[in-house]
Amino acid sequence: MSETKGRLTIPTDVDVVDKTLELIKKWGADAVRDCDGTEFPKELREIGLKIYSTYYTTRKDNAWAMENPEEIQQMYLMTPFYTAECDILCVHLMKGLYPDMLKPNSRDDIKRWWEVVDRTTGEVVDVDGWSYSEENGDVTIKTVPFHEYTISFLAYIMWDPVHMYNAVVNDWKDVEHQMTFDVRQPKTHDFTMKRLRKFIEEHPYVNVLRFTTFFHQFTLIFDELAREKYVDWYGYSASVSPYILEQFEREAGYKFRPEFIIDQGYYNNQYRIPTKEFKDFQAFQRREVARIAKKMVDITHEYGKEAMMFLGDHWIGTEPFLEEFASIGLDAVVGSVGNGPTLRLISDIEGVKYTEGRFLPYFFPDTFHEGGDPVKEAKVNWVTARRAILRKPIDRIGYGGYLKLAADFPEFVDYVESVGDEFRALYENIKGRTPYCVKKVAVLNCWGKMRAWGCHMVHHAIYHKKNYSYAGVIEALSGAPFDVKFISFDDIKENPDILKDIDVLVNVGDADTAHTGGEWWCDADIVTAVKKFVYNGGGIIGIGEPTGHQANGHFLQLANVFGVEKETGFTLGYDKYNWEIHSHFITEDIGETIDFGEGMKGIYALEGAEVLWGEEKEVQLAVNDFGKGRAVYISGLPYSFVNNRLFFRAVLWASHSEEKLKTWYSENYNVEVHAYPENGKYCVVNNTYEPQKTTVYTINGESYPLEMEANEIRWYSC
Amino acid sequence: MSETKGRLTIPTDVDVVDKTLELIKKWGADAVRDCDGTEFPKELREIGLKIYSTYYTTRKDNAWAMENPEEIQQMYLMTPFYTAECDILCVHLMKGLYPDMLKPNSRDDIKRWWEVVDRTTGEVVDVDGWSYSEENGDVTIKTVPFHEYTISFLAYIMWDPVHMYNAVVNDWKDVEHQMTFDVRQPKTHDFTMKRLRKFIEEHPYVNVLRFTTFFHQFTLIFDELAREKYVDWYGYSASVSPYILEQFEREAGYKFRPEFIIDQGYYNNQYRIPTKEFKDFQAFQRREVARIAKKMVDITHEYGKEAMMFLGDHWIGTEPFLEEFASIGLDAVVGSVGNGPTLRLISDIEGVKYTEGRFLPYFFPDTFHEGGDPVKEAKVNWVTARRAILRKPIDRIGYGGYLKLAADFPEFVDYVESVGDEFRALYENIKGRTPYCVKKVAVLNCWGKMRAWGCHMVHHAIYHKKNYSYAGVIEALSGAPFDVKFISFDDIKENPDILKDIDVLVNVGDADTAHTGGEWWCDADIVTAVKKFVYNGGGIIGIGEPTGHQANGHFLQLANVFGVEKETGFTLGYDKYNWEIHSHFITEDIGETIDFGEGMKGIYALEGAEVLWGEEKEVQLAVNDFGKGRAVYISGLPYSFVNNRLFFRAVLWASHSEEKLKTWYSENYNVEVHAYPENGKYCVVNNTYEPQKTTVYTINGESYPLEMEANEIRWYSC
Repeated sequence: MSETKGRLTIPTDVDVVDKTLELIKKWGADAVRDCDGTEFPKELREIGLKIYSTYYTTRKDNAWAMENPEEIQQMYLMTPFYTAECDILCVHLMKGLYPDMLKPNSRDDIKRWWEVVDRTTGEVVDVDGWSYSEENGDVTIKTVPFHEYTISFLAYIMWDPVHMYNAVVNDWKDVEHQMTFDVRQPKTHDFTMKRLRKFIEEHPYVNVLRFTTFFHQFTLIFDELAREKYVDWYGYSASVSPYILEQFEREAGYKFRPEFIIDQGYYNNQYRIPTKEFKDFQAFQRREVARIAKKMVDITHEYGKEAMMFLGDHWIGTEPFLEEFASIGLDAVVGSVGNGPTLRLISDIEGVKYTEGRFLPYFFPDTFHEGGDPVKEAKVNWVTARRAILRKPIDRIGYGGYLKLAADFPEFVDYVESVGDEFRALYENIKGRTPYCVKKVAVLNCWGKMRAWGCHMVHHAIYHKKNYSYAGVIEALSGAPFDVKFISFDDIKENPDILKDIDVLVNVGDADTAHTGGEWWCDADIVTAVKKFVYNGGGIIGIGEPTGHQANGHFLQLANVFGVEKETGFTLGYDKYNWEIHSHFITEDIGETIDFGEGMKGIYALEGAEVLWGEEKEVQLAVNDFGKGRAVYISGLPYSFVNNRLFFRAVLWASHSEEKLKTWYSENYNVEVHAYPENGKYCVVNNTYEPQKTTVYTINGESYPLEMEANEIRWYSC
Repeated sequence: MSETKGRLTIPTDVDVVDKTLELIKKWGADAVRDCDGTEFPKELREIGLKIYSTYYTTRKDNAWAMENPEEIQQMYLMTPFYTAECDILCVHLMKGLYPDMLKPNSRDDIKRWWEVVDRTTGEVVDVDGWSYSEENGDVTIKTVPFHEYTISFLAYIMWDPVHMYNAVVNDWKDVEHQMTFDVRQPKTHDFTMKRLRKFIEEHPYVNVLRFTTFFHQFTLIFDELAREKYVDWYGYSASVSPYILEQFEREAGYKFRPEFIIDQGYYNNQYRIPTKEFKDFQAFQRREVARIAKKMVDITHEYGKEAMMFLGDHWIGTEPFLEEFASIGLDAVVGSVGNGPTLRLISDIEGVKYTEGRFLPYFFPDTFHEGGDPVKEAKVNWVTARRAILRKPIDRIGYGGYLKLAADFPEFVDYVESVGDEFRALYENIKGRTPYCVKKVAVLNCWGKMRAWGCHMVHHAIYHKKNYSYAGVIEALSGAPFDVKFISFDDIKENPDILKDIDVLVNVGDADTAHTGGEWWCDADIVTAVKKFVYNGGGIIGIGEPTGHQANGHFLQLANVFGVEKETGFTLGYDKYNWEIHSHFITEDIGETIDFGEGMKGIYALEGAEVLWGEEKEVQLAVNDFGKGRAVYISGLPYSFVNNRLFFRAVLWASHSEEKLKTWYSENYNVEVHAYPENGKYCVVNNTYEPQKTTVYTINGESYPLEMEANEIRWYSC
């Protein structure tokens, strides 16, 4: 028997009490929550459901912030690049930034914490060579004519970026800008612990404190027109202050430089191959954030409440996939679900009692307006995430926003009811079971576990033309019957034996990015470990410019493993004869064309490799034997059901397991089969919004035909 | 009155004496020549025409070569990359090479002249770590498992590559392989000087010795199947021998390493940013080649003959655009004309009395067979080259191959007659006159003058998908009304003032190649000189990835000058708002679409730049102001008449000279106007194979309508 209620959280507000009660029943909700901009109604305090309350650790107390301006949060910023036209350059520091959001920190010693860099030479300009005028906000620099300069500076965050975002998106008028304070600084630290106790004491009906989040906002900046200027969901540049950086210096044992954070204006985003200094800084932040967050969780527990963390906003430094995280002692993590990888960002977290996914659409006017189609958005969101849930389920689902808006869309209300039922059935069948995994696949990049599922992500689940051809691989993996690991070059360097536990390595992305590794492929230990792995029978799949870094006669450092190389001009003198297209196991049921997304220019096959797809003398798909191992090259692989199948086949072929194809398998690639042998269950899911016919293969070559409704999921015992 | 004969050379053979006489008359030929594989007929010795004889300095005397095997020419070769599977690797040295063409040189000390390189670490393997077996041709190396190894070795050239090419292409059977000997080594040197005297003495009827060429073949290698394996028309790898290299060491003052030539297997091709060692080596070769070639020319002159050099085959080391060349004292240079740039490779040579262009098609069976269309090939060749001739004429034209074959195509015979007449008329009108040049344009790359017109060329005028989008710019320039220079970074480094004499700089190609400059853009002197040039009012046009090299916060080092940057992943966090397309002077008469060839992915405009063309959030054409100067970014520009117009407009805009557009100008871009004010002449040419209507602008805004026949050229006095 399936559970008929529970595992679902709904938002509420003072103006929708009756509707809340109605939907609690209809949707089977067992928890109610408030949101940024809503209030929890008194009438719902005693209805026997779990009550979540958002708790803003770093904002919603401007009085404190204004009394303690030196403990307002700060971020590092870099000005644009300015070319000196003569021997003096005058720069308005805040040009390009939303003036109400940021205020340069000249309270601390600017000569210590700011940095003027000659970007033509890469050298730091001597502190005597520049000055800042408090009155007009200008920096004046003694320059070499026609050199380029930037200024790295600290600024106070006078308006919390997410609060500003919500205000702009929801067109809030006359709202007081919420300032942010730095919980890690001494006065605010003490204040915060007391404030938390006070909040809990004043909200006795609340069962779950939903921290939004702890201390440091991911990087989010707005321009003069209040448009988003820069965003990095993984950015650490707003987790700084002289107080923190002095601690870091003591721990690291070397002098801090603003450039450790500024990184030429790239702010150490996840495409950058991380420097030692940035890795040191992140490690320091993780330890400090965990230590202080634990204090807040302990207080929460002291009052008998649960502590839940929202995986967003001020989540920087928590790094849920790394070891420090469990020490915080949280009960739960909740996060927004945009697709398969963002689902697994939540569901793969260890060291908490439960996880919860916030599904889309948010009940905001951008979707819930006349003519809007929230059901469509909800379906796409649910069906996309369901693949991932079937591999590794979250424990709860939920929604956010203004319930009032959703209530006006009866079809949507019905759809959420069906999602709730489907989720509960699914959860009951699979929770705690290990699903059938045909292979162990490891994605190798510079970040490893730390950016598990989140690699190739800039902002949370946002499309980029530059990366959808690579992010598609992670989407495919999020719902694939593989045991998926994310490993780093550091991991291999530390212990090459980790490769022994892997069937297929995946290296995906552009050359000279952290996703493929760049100069790491000039490290003999790395190259030999990976080559040995493949040579001895391992599989490797490279997508885009895998192992790409120009050195030692190769652009793709493992050109001889993949059997392909990229023409950058340097090998135009070599005649290329290997263009014939071969039919192959990998492309067997793929159809007439393959969508390689952006694809790749200039890839050619070396002698001995087998080209599976290519046009106009540019190879898009090829395979190669290397020793006893096998390599697959794919130029790009945006997510689609057919590409998902292609990738599945590539993994099987690379691991010499073609014979395992038709086990828990659907002939039609729009339908997938997930098995839970421990539990004697399996399900068949139609991932499309249309009916599908297929043949389902279970084990021992047994099969049967099946017709499915749109989006349908069917459960079987085996 | 036009000349009605002369300035034209035809080939002959013993079996076509009458036909030769007939065509001499019809075509107005004043010179006759033999070819590789033909003989000069006795009957034509005394007909009063100039007689050219090919002279092969380095081959056609196998007896000598066999007697002096140690002085057979040599080349450096690198094996493929081999991965060691254990601690011993055994490599068959000649794998992948045509066995009859090359023979490893183990006569000289292989431990001194060969090099085994661990390409995983980049380190040279100690000479004790490897050995070569003469019997089976294998090299055995003590290895680190899974490291990659290559062997650089010297081999004797047992079959002249061009002779082999001619034999393969023309399917010559049972031909004795012509060996090559090294004129720079002592015995062969003496022998050669005597041999030359002997040849001249034995061929008293010959007026012009056409050297094919001097000493060193451009790099050309064949694989086991006698297919072309590697070609570089600019390659120096076949200009080596221990004898030569020891001289080089003495001159350079440092130890020679095979890697100076091998260059990781890239053989210093023109896409590679040249190393100091390679530049030193080229300079040494130039001096030595000039010194010895001069000796041969002096002997030729001593006998009252003219010395003509063929710009091909063994032309390496002559470098006709550099200063050593004039010291050789040649009377003439002849070369094959494939397009505009290859025409100017010849016609721009200084320091000779005359130049001659060998036009296509060669009278070979690949074109002159039943069903072949030699007229079409000839038209395309002539009309393409004519643009360039109108800027800088060669002094003579000519044809090569088997006259017998051409004689069977009466339409072709007629067409050549018309070409001869047209050329003579043209020559008379423009020889020695400076054509009207609206602007001074300089192409900036690592090679400068040395690769003038030949940059972006791998083999002589051969299409490559990788480079046609860039080579098109050079084609456009070859016939454009600009004073065109090719300058190098070294030139600017030496004297930044050379920029004062330039209106528009052009930087065209892919990032990190010699064509755009790569790391040169991290040289503060270079960057500041170029920025200063633009800032003070200069123009700059960048095509592809101009100034591309990842460093100091930029991918395009002059991003702020061009107003565009390339997304490599590092700036995905930055929001981009500048996508609106603007109409502009540059695109005014370009039509609905622009062919950017391969175009470029990921280019976005910075604030302030003006996007002129772009789709799907990728900019293909943009302009930007920088100080008083102007910059144009183009993603790629394959040659076409409309793109030629676009480029012309870009140059005018970049140099603030929009008002100069309608001077010596055709409204219809398929037609061009070239003026020779010194001479009071101008011509209008229809570059297409169809009739065209246009409006012709002369000076002072005067214009008139004109209808032209296909390919027509019309001359006017002004």
